[in-house]
Amino acid sequence: MINQEYKAMIGKKSVIRELAEYATRRSEEIGRENVFDYTIGNPSVPVPQAFTDKLVELATSHDPVAVHGYSPSLGITSVREKIAASLRRRFGLEYRKEHIFMTSGAAGAVAHALRAVTVPGDEVITFAPYFPEYNPYVNKTGAVLKIVPPDTETFQINFEEFEKMFSSKVMAVLINTPNNPSGITYSTETIKKLAAFLEDREREYGHDIYLISDEPYREIVFKGVDAPYVAGFYHNSITCYSFSKSLSLPGERIGYVAVNPACRDAKLIVEMCGQISRGIGHNCPPSIIQLAVAEVADLTADLSVYETNMNILYHELTGLGFSCVKPGGTFYMFPKAPEEDAVAFCKRALKYDLILVPADSFGCPGYFRMAYCMSTEKVRRSLPAFRKLAAEYRQIRERSGQA
Amino acid sequence: MINQEYKAMIGKKSVIRELAEYATRRSEEIGRENVFDYTIGNPSVPVPQAFTDKLVELATSHDPVAVHGYSPSLGITSVREKIAASLRRRFGLEYRKEHIFMTSGAAGAVAHALRAVTVPGDEVITFAPYFPEYNPYVNKTGAVLKIVPPDTETFQINFEEFEKMFSSKVMAVLINTPNNPSGITYSTETIKKLAAFLEDREREYGHDIYLISDEPYREIVFKGVDAPYVAGFYHNSITCYSFSKSLSLPGERIGYVAVNPACRDAKLIVEMCGQISRGIGHNCPPSIIQLAVAEVADLTADLSVYETNMNILYHELTGLGFSCVKPGGTFYMFPKAPEEDAVAFCKRALKYDLILVPADSFGCPGYFRMAYCMSTEKVRRSLPAFRKLAAEYRQIRERSGQA
Repeated sequence: MINQEYKAMIGKKSVIRELAEYATRRSEEIGRENVFDYTIGNPSVPVPQAFTDKLVELATSHDPVAVHGYSPSLGITSVREKIAASLRRRFGLEYRKEHIFMTSGAAGAVAHALRAVTVPGDEVITFAPYFPEYNPYVNKTGAVLKIVPPDTETFQINFEEFEKMFSSKVMAVLINTPNNPSGITYSTETIKKLAAFLEDREREYGHDIYLISDEPYREIVFKGVDAPYVAGFYHNSITCYSFSKSLSLPGERIGYVAVNPACRDAKLIVEMCGQISRGIGHNCPPSIIQLAVAEVADLTADLSVYETNMNILYHELTGLGFSCVKPGGTFYMFPKAPEEDAVAFCKRALKYDLILVPADSFGCPGYFRMAYCMSTEKVRRSLPAFRKLAAEYRQIRERSGQA
Repeated sequence: MINQEYKAMIGKKSVIRELAEYATRRSEEIGRENVFDYTIGNPSVPVPQAFTDKLVELATSHDPVAVHGYSPSLGITSVREKIAASLRRRFGLEYRKEHIFMTSGAAGAVAHALRAVTVPGDEVITFAPYFPEYNPYVNKTGAVLKIVPPDTETFQINFEEFEKMFSSKVMAVLINTPNNPSGITYSTETIKKLAAFLEDREREYGHDIYLISDEPYREIVFKGVDAPYVAGFYHNSITCYSFSKSLSLPGERIGYVAVNPACRDAKLIVEMCGQISRGIGHNCPPSIIQLAVAEVADLTADLSVYETNMNILYHELTGLGFSCVKPGGTFYMFPKAPEEDAVAFCKRALKYDLILVPADSFGCPGYFRMAYCMSTEKVRRSLPAFRKLAAEYRQIRERSGQA
């Protein structure tokens, strides 16, 4: 009979998806160019030409039976070797193909990593604000997701609350830097402190504690920002990567798990990922996408538009009185709403065709997320709408005598 | 800490994979052309040119941001519409896009269907000989896989044993026709009898019983063979399809779940599949592969080589005294080994560089599987090796006075 657990999940529609659907309907009414849709993190710049060239070459100049043939379940060997070499070159860790497992994006990577290092009943800790899909990723393994409340001054880790919540039941800590939705990056200081804390607790409890680092935005870091490579600081670390944002191909679902070579069970965890795949019938990402992406592992799309957009929006919004921690990367920013109820605020913004996402589902009520992966021209055209929205709040405050 | 359940799975290497690895090593010694590798079901004919053309067109002549953008979690709407239309046209059932969920091949389809209609502790029944990966697909949902012993006369369903094993705990029956490994197709009579039995049991137990039909070989059916479309016979049926074999692109991991429009919960099950995907971090198959495959949903690669090969091998092997039910489709055949221990038989075959797979892991000891997806020229060149192998068994029998 129907599985009631999955049935019950259907009702709970994602706020982001609902707002995105509203944006689509509104676009049909007034034209897409007039709707300032800040909801969805779909990259707005094209994939590098080198990826397209390689894809076409694979499809047209190689033996189709070989190109479209089965991939080994851990990923195509040459692809894993190229990715390991790229990580070695860039981050200095001794990655080999044995440390790499090819996945369907970072989502698949996180879901595999979680299954490898937890059993039902274990706890996994993450930090607000956090990506809401961490709930199904963790809870569907049978483990329990615990959320550390945010440090809203900096959106670095709130160590005080973290240490209070930590216990011997925690088998994995899940971080996301550069962060969706806050846009900040964890500093060297933050990561060092986290690593030292986890090492202490490993010694105290006498068991391994894994740091799962979800890094789809790793390549989108703004000038001068401190955003170190997480795995360099902690032995039991598992890096979950996606090419979605760096290469602008989120729909192609391609990424990897890279287990720190310093992790005692590194090769075992990679082998286990292959077994986890069997259980979910996934097997491996598409061969031609693996082969094409391996050729451009060191490249990115032209990501500069995101920093340009961030600077314009940060300048404008803080000028209008919004409180916002300056993003260090990604294509998100995360200002405080000018009223306590961010849902009410985002509803009000719709009047000006500004589609913003209230952050309640990110574990940070009172804030809102803006995904500014769009053309700079459109960002600029949206500024008058923000001004009108801010003016409306000024009037409200004046009427209530707060101004 | 490391999940011991997945760790334990690693030790149990697939016999097929081990033999394929042996074939690779042996090829390095004596040349690939001299190793008659009948182990792996990797299609040997090229993908249709129309697929390649469409893939190249999508990569080069469309907006890359749109082509490589996120797919909705149930699959791209236009793709689901095209697949529904193709199924309507071909099989006469009233499929609409609401009945279609895009997956990573048939493996992903079966794994999703199982999770939708069972809960941990339920039973799922399948029929030997069966695809060994059904074990992780079913057991990793928490349900229990029960195997009905084979009817080795016909490899149709052994209804006597099936009815004995059936109980109110069975929520799904998993079939595979045309069948891997036997190569036979379930006849109209078999499917009608199965459907009538399940309808009876639904009435008796007062709950739905789902028929999950795993059909990656649906398009590989030989001349004059009775191989009806399963879903046409039973309302609560879920068709799990892959384009791997029909289009010769197993590595691209693309298929679908098609829930019978006559199933009361059809649309609900499709929506649930989307939720199941969230839990495993899968989300959806690659956008560009979805878009390309939708254009060729009615085409197949040139599959005629498989029937040619089957006829040659069936003629030769039965002539040499092997007992074999004649395949009706796929690119497999499934003869009885000339000694009780098929593992010993397959080991003996290695002497002649014939790589055959003993069927113990398919739930049918004493038989062996041959995947004849190779060139007809190579099939012909392998015949002397079969003759030598058969001669060796004649000598053994003569020596032991059995001949």
